[in-house]
Amino acid sequence: MDYDAMFNTQLETLKDEGNYRVFAELERRCGDFPRAKSHDAEAPDEVTVWCSNDYLGMGQNPVVRQAMKDAIDQCGTGAGGTRNISGTNHHHKLLEAELADLHRKEDALLFTSGYVSNWAALSTLGSRLPDAVILSDSLNHASMIEGIRHSRAQKVIWKHNDPEDLDRKLAALPANAPKIVAFESVYSMDGDICPMAEIVEVADKHGAMTYLDEVHAVGLYGPRGGGIAEREGLMDRITLIEGTLGKAYGCMGGYIAGSAALCDFIRSFASGFIFTTALPPAVAAAACASIKHLKQSNLERLQQRDRVAKLRAMLNARGIPHLDNPSHIIPVMIKDPVKCRMLADILMQDYGIYVQPINYPTVPKGTERLRFTPSPLHSDADLEHLIEALTVLWKQCALARAVA
Amino acid sequence: MDYDAMFNTQLETLKDEGNYRVFAELERRCGDFPRAKSHDAEAPDEVTVWCSNDYLGMGQNPVVRQAMKDAIDQCGTGAGGTRNISGTNHHHKLLEAELADLHRKEDALLFTSGYVSNWAALSTLGSRLPDAVILSDSLNHASMIEGIRHSRAQKVIWKHNDPEDLDRKLAALPANAPKIVAFESVYSMDGDICPMAEIVEVADKHGAMTYLDEVHAVGLYGPRGGGIAEREGLMDRITLIEGTLGKAYGCMGGYIAGSAALCDFIRSFASGFIFTTALPPAVAAAACASIKHLKQSNLERLQQRDRVAKLRAMLNARGIPHLDNPSHIIPVMIKDPVKCRMLADILMQDYGIYVQPINYPTVPKGTERLRFTPSPLHSDADLEHLIEALTVLWKQCALARAVA
Repeated sequence: MDYDAMFNTQLETLKDEGNYRVFAELERRCGDFPRAKSHDAEAPDEVTVWCSNDYLGMGQNPVVRQAMKDAIDQCGTGAGGTRNISGTNHHHKLLEAELADLHRKEDALLFTSGYVSNWAALSTLGSRLPDAVILSDSLNHASMIEGIRHSRAQKVIWKHNDPEDLDRKLAALPANAPKIVAFESVYSMDGDICPMAEIVEVADKHGAMTYLDEVHAVGLYGPRGGGIAEREGLMDRITLIEGTLGKAYGCMGGYIAGSAALCDFIRSFASGFIFTTALPPAVAAAACASIKHLKQSNLERLQQRDRVAKLRAMLNARGIPHLDNPSHIIPVMIKDPVKCRMLADILMQDYGIYVQPINYPTVPKGTERLRFTPSPLHSDADLEHLIEALTVLWKQCALARAVA
Repeated sequence: MDYDAMFNTQLETLKDEGNYRVFAELERRCGDFPRAKSHDAEAPDEVTVWCSNDYLGMGQNPVVRQAMKDAIDQCGTGAGGTRNISGTNHHHKLLEAELADLHRKEDALLFTSGYVSNWAALSTLGSRLPDAVILSDSLNHASMIEGIRHSRAQKVIWKHNDPEDLDRKLAALPANAPKIVAFESVYSMDGDICPMAEIVEVADKHGAMTYLDEVHAVGLYGPRGGGIAEREGLMDRITLIEGTLGKAYGCMGGYIAGSAALCDFIRSFASGFIFTTALPPAVAAAACASIKHLKQSNLERLQQRDRVAKLRAMLNARGIPHLDNPSHIIPVMIKDPVKCRMLADILMQDYGIYVQPINYPTVPKGTERLRFTPSPLHSDADLEHLIEALTVLWKQCALARAVA
């Protein structure tokens, strides 16, 4: 049986659709973010990264780097085991305490990634709470969808960011069934933000617990970086807050925060937590330093907002359409995978501007886009270079459309 | 609805069974492995770790540590994105090339953990190959079981390490169905090793692909640390080799190695690969340095074997029963969760010996054990201290049995 032929057949389909992915190979230059050395033959040696999820550039912060290096010298490069079998390090416990404090919860629990935290927590809640029903926002992230699917619990999808639809769907369920309302604060591909207060009201009314993914918000929103729930004064109304250490905090790993009983429950039963090597203590130490920094410093958040507002204004001034939203994410819709790839290639090769084309399965087919995430580190010159390039390309596209 | 009460009810059951887990909070002392500082109030300040999966102590290797620190200064603390969206760093590509070379395969693909690599690869193969059947060894690891379950492909369980049973079960399946034989080389809880040549023969006979988990073997077996498949000269007979960077290599992360088409297929379709932040470049750099070192150096492997043989001989001399096996893992069976915990507590508190009690769900109920993993770094004095402690405890247990 020719397995490679089977693999290649499916890969060919992806290629024919324009959905085959080519990764840009980069080396970010520490101390010089958002600049990176490119290893792609057709790109300039140095490029400017415009699509990083290290939203605030904390990955190059000297305090964060030093914390990581110190912990390497102190404890070594790896944890050496699962959390249960020799892998729990003091740095993990310090980080969990820091996270619990960040979200004003009794406890927190670390995972190897945000993906695993969503998958493990939702699959455990859905499978172990008898007759549980999970009510999932229609645009939830893949990690939540897979966790819900894996739980085999009943799943009800409610209309994206629509508390009234959620209300109707909750009302149709048995009063005594455990219910979990799963949603995100900032949706990463459209950059829209949920109506959290209304969702929490509706969930409370029906005795549902709330499961909130804040991965694109922690570090970025709220006076201490606690996310949208902190900004809205709603942290105590959320049963479980899930977050990441791999985006605004510039490191790696995921977590949940909630009651002591909830965290202990997931800790004790979640396969994806139990059977995996713990995060390197040095990664935990770096994340802890990053969180501490962003609890006290608003500078990075303010600078980021300034850069985001400026890019939006420049796009508007040049008539380049982008999704309007209240977050730090600026999606420029292309709506075709081949064109999206082509535009990204030209930006990279001719202008040294790196913005990854976003295509299926990250977004639905037909909604392909370029997704810009301005950081505090993008200078006025960077913004101007980007807007000039986009303006030239937009004119060429308009010309092509007129001729066609 | 009182969700915390639901969580607590299930936690109470665990506690009543003796299966509630308490993690030992440690700080391994770099340069002084297997010593660690303990943060548990009832343990001595300094303990000796006897259950680490950093089997060779590579986590404190100066070359590995330096590689990690250099990459932090070069690229920062995190990858900053998924592999597709700005997260592919030069260090990831270098590591993937190193892994492909280690296993003499066309390509390799990195994951955030061994758990995720198994879960993502098996769920993708099982769900995307039409009519696929996965034949799973009955003692496969949780990450494989969950991946197979998630795929919703037909699953056939064959008797542990029994190629004849596998043969019968393969023969009963339709000739034209894609078949995946999933198994491990070293089973971590019993320490037994599979009859790989026979399994490969049987799989070939039926046109099945072979999926081999070598997480407890890579770095440890084979002249270059390529695992049992390398030692047996069978790497080219295995379709997919899965391994980890978090055990013998002393870092974090998982991977698969195989044909270019296979790796591209998983890269292109696996949710658990696509939708997660990439490993920190510094972790990739450290792992790469560790693999390179263990490709060339046999010293650590030889020293480890010496320590393992010595502990086995000492246990035999004192009449302390342990599972006989041909690997580096020494399980001392206790077969009761409460006694197992009690013995581990006494070893920790009275002797500064840390060996985690292994209980359900890591092993079946009734097979609780202490699992010792001697490393090159355990001295003769460490071995003697351990064996004296165990001898005292065994005499006390025998006395207790005689009196009871």
